[in-house]
Amino acid sequence: MRRGWLLTGVAALGLCAASQAAVANDELMVMEQNPANWVMPLGDYSSTRFSELGQINKSNVGNLQVAWTFSTGVLRGHEGGPLVFGSTMYIHTPFPNIVYALDLNDNGRVIWKYEPSQDPDVIPVMCCDTVNRGVAYGDGKIFLHQADTTLVALDARTGEVQWTAVNGDPTKGETGTSAPMVIGDKVLVGISGGEFGVHGHVTAYDINSGELVWRGFSTGPDDMTLLDPQNTTHLGQPVGQDSGTATWEGDQWQIGGGTTWGWFSYDPDLHLVYYGSGNPGTWNPAQRPGDNRWSMTIFARDPDTGMAKWVYQKTPHDEWDYDGVNENILADIEIDGEVRKVLVNFDRNGFGYTLDRETGELLVAEKYDPAVNWATHVDMETGRPQVVSRYSTDQQGEDVNTTNICPAALGTKDQQPAAFSPGTGLFYVPTNHVCMDYEPFAVSYTAGQPFVGATLSMYPAPGGDHLGNFIAWDAGKGEIVWSIPEPFSVWSGALATAGDVVFYGTLEGYLKAVDADTGAPLYQFKTPSGIIGNVNTWMHNGKQYIGVLSGIGGWAGIGLAAGLTGDTEGLGAVGAYKALSDYTQLGGVLTVFTLP
Amino acid sequence: MRRGWLLTGVAALGLCAASQAAVANDELMVMEQNPANWVMPLGDYSSTRFSELGQINKSNVGNLQVAWTFSTGVLRGHEGGPLVFGSTMYIHTPFPNIVYALDLNDNGRVIWKYEPSQDPDVIPVMCCDTVNRGVAYGDGKIFLHQADTTLVALDARTGEVQWTAVNGDPTKGETGTSAPMVIGDKVLVGISGGEFGVHGHVTAYDINSGELVWRGFSTGPDDMTLLDPQNTTHLGQPVGQDSGTATWEGDQWQIGGGTTWGWFSYDPDLHLVYYGSGNPGTWNPAQRPGDNRWSMTIFARDPDTGMAKWVYQKTPHDEWDYDGVNENILADIEIDGEVRKVLVNFDRNGFGYTLDRETGELLVAEKYDPAVNWATHVDMETGRPQVVSRYSTDQQGEDVNTTNICPAALGTKDQQPAAFSPGTGLFYVPTNHVCMDYEPFAVSYTAGQPFVGATLSMYPAPGGDHLGNFIAWDAGKGEIVWSIPEPFSVWSGALATAGDVVFYGTLEGYLKAVDADTGAPLYQFKTPSGIIGNVNTWMHNGKQYIGVLSGIGGWAGIGLAAGLTGDTEGLGAVGAYKALSDYTQLGGVLTVFTLP
Repeated sequence: MRRGWLLTGVAALGLCAASQAAVANDELMVMEQNPANWVMPLGDYSSTRFSELGQINKSNVGNLQVAWTFSTGVLRGHEGGPLVFGSTMYIHTPFPNIVYALDLNDNGRVIWKYEPSQDPDVIPVMCCDTVNRGVAYGDGKIFLHQADTTLVALDARTGEVQWTAVNGDPTKGETGTSAPMVIGDKVLVGISGGEFGVHGHVTAYDINSGELVWRGFSTGPDDMTLLDPQNTTHLGQPVGQDSGTATWEGDQWQIGGGTTWGWFSYDPDLHLVYYGSGNPGTWNPAQRPGDNRWSMTIFARDPDTGMAKWVYQKTPHDEWDYDGVNENILADIEIDGEVRKVLVNFDRNGFGYTLDRETGELLVAEKYDPAVNWATHVDMETGRPQVVSRYSTDQQGEDVNTTNICPAALGTKDQQPAAFSPGTGLFYVPTNHVCMDYEPFAVSYTAGQPFVGATLSMYPAPGGDHLGNFIAWDAGKGEIVWSIPEPFSVWSGALATAGDVVFYGTLEGYLKAVDADTGAPLYQFKTPSGIIGNVNTWMHNGKQYIGVLSGIGGWAGIGLAAGLTGDTEGLGAVGAYKALSDYTQLGGVLTVFTLP
Repeated sequence: MRRGWLLTGVAALGLCAASQAAVANDELMVMEQNPANWVMPLGDYSSTRFSELGQINKSNVGNLQVAWTFSTGVLRGHEGGPLVFGSTMYIHTPFPNIVYALDLNDNGRVIWKYEPSQDPDVIPVMCCDTVNRGVAYGDGKIFLHQADTTLVALDARTGEVQWTAVNGDPTKGETGTSAPMVIGDKVLVGISGGEFGVHGHVTAYDINSGELVWRGFSTGPDDMTLLDPQNTTHLGQPVGQDSGTATWEGDQWQIGGGTTWGWFSYDPDLHLVYYGSGNPGTWNPAQRPGDNRWSMTIFARDPDTGMAKWVYQKTPHDEWDYDGVNENILADIEIDGEVRKVLVNFDRNGFGYTLDRETGELLVAEKYDPAVNWATHVDMETGRPQVVSRYSTDQQGEDVNTTNICPAALGTKDQQPAAFSPGTGLFYVPTNHVCMDYEPFAVSYTAGQPFVGATLSMYPAPGGDHLGNFIAWDAGKGEIVWSIPEPFSVWSGALATAGDVVFYGTLEGYLKAVDADTGAPLYQFKTPSGIIGNVNTWMHNGKQYIGVLSGIGGWAGIGLAAGLTGDTEGLGAVGAYKALSDYTQLGGVLTVFTLP
């Protein structure tokens, strides 16, 4: 719906109006250098969620005030966060996936609103609430991946639809929840539906026409996975022919999951895009013997062709739903006295991985929650976690309730992105501190029906009653530097700033600011609803702002979001989070903070 | 749903746990003396919406900050506001009419939540959004009038249902939107449905048992209206026998409207309860000749028996939908050099009335918006407005579009309650500045179906493009003292304080504070959604707080609330407020403010 475009907005935005597709990422790379903007969901191509802004700092963050607020008009879980270009902000909502352009010169006045028309039958196909993790900007367009998998390009100035592309089929369980990323003249987007036997892929579309340029599947023969038997490596070794089918029985790879609902990162120097793939289907490991490559895998691909340079499978033959989709943070940090170009990944499986992002060499793999017990360690030669038999749901067998596995299926960390501060050299990680009982059972595949095959229950990790921690992590050493216990999982994306302040949100609804060096609490504010969105920052008219979407929901908040009262079969997270309703209720609201 | 009761809450609340029904209003009268509390929707029995608190005052209100926020989990229009007793707050929502008890010691943690199960078929029977104007406290109970007309008594400490009473029948168009009032051992409640030919009444229920004690209809024979032909007076004259049928044709009084969806006031010294009745049905005046008594009338009744002491009909034979339900503010003010016990009423019809509240004598009747044109003045002898022929939709005739009538059907003021400051002696009135075209047409009555019979369109009053004003009014002289133009109608209840600050909310979502003497702006903050709730204040742990519910909707916001895109036949308000969606979206959120 066009709402008219403010001239002030045009001037301040300075968006690339001409169609200069090939330089779209040059434009973004220039934009991301200006900390007044927040140009992509994770802040920059490196996914650091770090801002050079330091007006709000350790000494004054305690004076933070709410500047203005904006209700999105949508209930249920609000993941992701605002983008800011000059005086224009873009925010999005869960289903029905409204996008708003807001005028920062007028306390968030609506410049335009885009509300797609979508078949609500997609809602029951979304495993873990009707979330959406954000929009992408490129070449004067805003790209939205709708729940129904429609990828839509909107004119950033008017909200008018430029083109649409259909990325999947909700009747098969394929849905859209993830944020796209623009690289060069392409927009990349993944696919959700790991609980429906969806055949995961990442697809690149031409940003001008919406035409499909390439699609790389997570599993399948080489021409589908875009893996080169000789030149694509896994820990330095060629992956070999049809590695995406070789570790599956028969045609199981076709319903093998490996969905791609997480985040993208991009290294323009190496010209590689990084992302992870999710769990293999089903959750019952007995039904799919083998390593189930390349589920649970970090991919490094050429964004022009989709060809993979290297892959690393973090959890071969998953037995716990430890999706490998979490963000890959690109940083240059010291390892054993040498500065390395690394990629840091906090996996659902509880290991914090540091890899050489050029070669995929495994440098560090350590537990980032001491509760993690399903594996003793990761073998640094083979890259394989060393599974503890009593927590192996495959070894324990079908219809056996394997108890006290840590972490739970929602992982030591789920989609909530971490932050990296080059100032402190530390990573700031929102985590879950939850364990589970897991009972796999036989399930048959029907397109569009849940393909889960396990019953779970989740509860706090032993020795405490808290469900989360917010930690600082040394990715060179693989060590926790400090840890803040939180009553509930920290399901909000973190923000680190040059003010040496780190921000995150809590499921009860608090925005919190802590000292980047020590974790000492500096500020907190109770926003209208639980926070599963990501904290962002920007500068406008000389003032630094902090913004975050509230709106309880997501997997941890699915009980509230979907009005559930008991445990949900196959997801099971409801029980542990029942007390959330004592603290917060549904409601999507952006809260913007600044100094007086 | 019981959430457990905090011991600190019990102690701080000091509620009357024992069943001392007869002294329930003694208890409330003591409570309302303590400005730390906010004990009833309009603040006190006099409906002044004035607080003795002055910690937040003219000189420091500019430093106001948001202290905490709470999303109610419900979209659509949030009228009314929070009650506060000690460290416990009670808030309510539009349909489904959730009530929350919140702990002020913990940023609004949920102590208990009551969510009734109601047939959603009541929603289309609610003329002007699914609003509710608040709950009442008395004798350790919270009283809620649900949309489906169930009056429910909840244990204030646990939220457990004590009793329920059915006050009406939604299949006939009878609904509940108004706040009850507790007087003595009774709880009084009105009925909504003026657009459905509902036969309006006020009913008193026993606060302990929920038994119906008395019911006074607005129209009908004396035993239904509880009017005494000799002792009930209208401007000093006995009303005569069956005055509630005498000015109707045949049995039309039975579907004659006069609904009672506004506010109650109570004078304990005179032992009289005051309220107003709404429009006669239908909106087509040609179908119901006569004065249509006692629609559009202020009633002064004995709360024990329901018998009326006096009545005053403000708009005989309504031709414009000028419901007479607005609040009656009880104050002792100087009139012609003499302090009088008065009742001040800002009627939908655009006249501000000052009456002697003991006798019903008309003291002042002046326009509180210069745009008002449908009548030249009110004859002070007869009390009758002198109608201008060209704006008389009856004289112009059926199927004739009478244009440029001011005010529009939603009146110079609707339900949004005004405030009175004994400090300044002024009344602070949120107003509409809207005119209309009105075309009556013949309509037949079918129970439960709209009984409107007119097509409207509404637009800003001539000579400007603003739809509202916030004014200060001298009720002794009948004069506007100052007036603040607002882009949209001011649909929020005002608050006056001993700090000589007056607060109100705007449809765009701003909470505003102005100087009580001059109207000079002192503070504003953009809350998450448009404000149609009432601003309240309280003291907790030595700090004064201001609180208001956001949540665009109500009649002015029905376009947004119900997702309408064009004009609504018979209501017609949508057009004038279309631009609201450029400023705000749906979402119920309580925002709480305090000084740093």
